[in-house]
Amino acid sequence: MNDFDFSGTHVIADIVGIDPAAIRNDRVILRGMDEGLDRSGATLCGLQVRQFDPAGLTVVYLLSESHASVHTYPERNALFFDAFTCGSTCNPRAFLDALVAALGPCEVRVKVFPRGQGSQASTSHAAGLALSSH
Amino acid sequence: MNDFDFSGTHVIADIVGIDPAAIRNDRVILRGMDEGLDRSGATLCGLQVRQFDPAGLTVVYLLSESHASVHTYPERNALFFDAFTCGSTCNPRAFLDALVAALGPCEVRVKVFPRGQGSQASTSHAAGLALSSH
Repeated sequence: MNDFDFSGTHVIADIVGIDPAAIRNDRVILRGMDEGLDRSGATLCGLQVRQFDPAGLTVVYLLSESHASVHTYPERNALFFDAFTCGSTCNPRAFLDALVAALGPCEVRVKVFPRGQGSQASTSHAAGLALSSH
Repeated sequence: MNDFDFSGTHVIADIVGIDPAAIRNDRVILRGMDEGLDRSGATLCGLQVRQFDPAGLTVVYLLSESHASVHTYPERNALFFDAFTCGSTCNPRAFLDALVAALGPCEVRVKVFPRGQGSQASTSHAAGLALSSH
C-alpha cells in the first residue's frame, strides 16, 4: 500500500429511531465516536465540537486519513454520520459499528463506497470544464 | 422549511487532472474553499487546516448546516472533496462549483444525493441490530 495512492472508502449513514435518552446525551455520542475512532485504526489530528441551541451536536474529526463527522437531531431521535478514510489501512465501517453499538437499538441506513482510483461508481464530467452552478 | 427537519444534500467529488501548480498551492485551495463557502450560503462555525509531510493539505469546515472538507494529493494532481448541508437553504453543489473554478481545468467525478427524510437511495438495516464490523 502506497500512502499516496488516491483511493479510500467513504461510509455514510443516516441513523433514525435512536433512544431519546441516548441521542440527547452528548457523552453517549462522544463516547461512541471515540470508540469508533479507536476501532477504525485512524489517527486523530484535530477535533471540533459544537453544541447548537436549542439542541443538536456536531463533532468533526480531522484524521491523518481524512475526516469523520456526526450531526445529531435530538428532536428527531436521529443523526447523520460519515467517515472517509484514504488508503486501505483503516476501517471506516468499524467506526460506524462502534457508534451504533453506543447508541443502542436504532435503524441504520448506510452507504459504503470506494473513492478515487479504481472507483467505478463515479460520474465523470468532461475534463477542462467547470461544473455549472445550477 | 423547518430548521429541525432531518434532511439534507451531500455532494461528494473526486477531482483529478488538476494543474500541478494549482494543487501544490495551498492558497488556491483555501481560496476556492472560501469562495465555495460563500456561494453555498452556509454559515461557518469552525475551521481545521492541516498540512501533511511531505505534501498534502486537509481542510475541514464545521458548518451550522453540517460540514465540508477537502483532502489534496499533490503527487497525484488530485483531491477529495465533500460538502454536506442539512435543510434546503444551502447549496453544496455551488460550493463544489466554486472550488472547481479556482482549480482551473480538471476532471470532476461527482455524486449528489439526498439524505434523511424522503431519501430513497439508502439501504435499510434491521432496527435494533448493530452492524457487523467486517
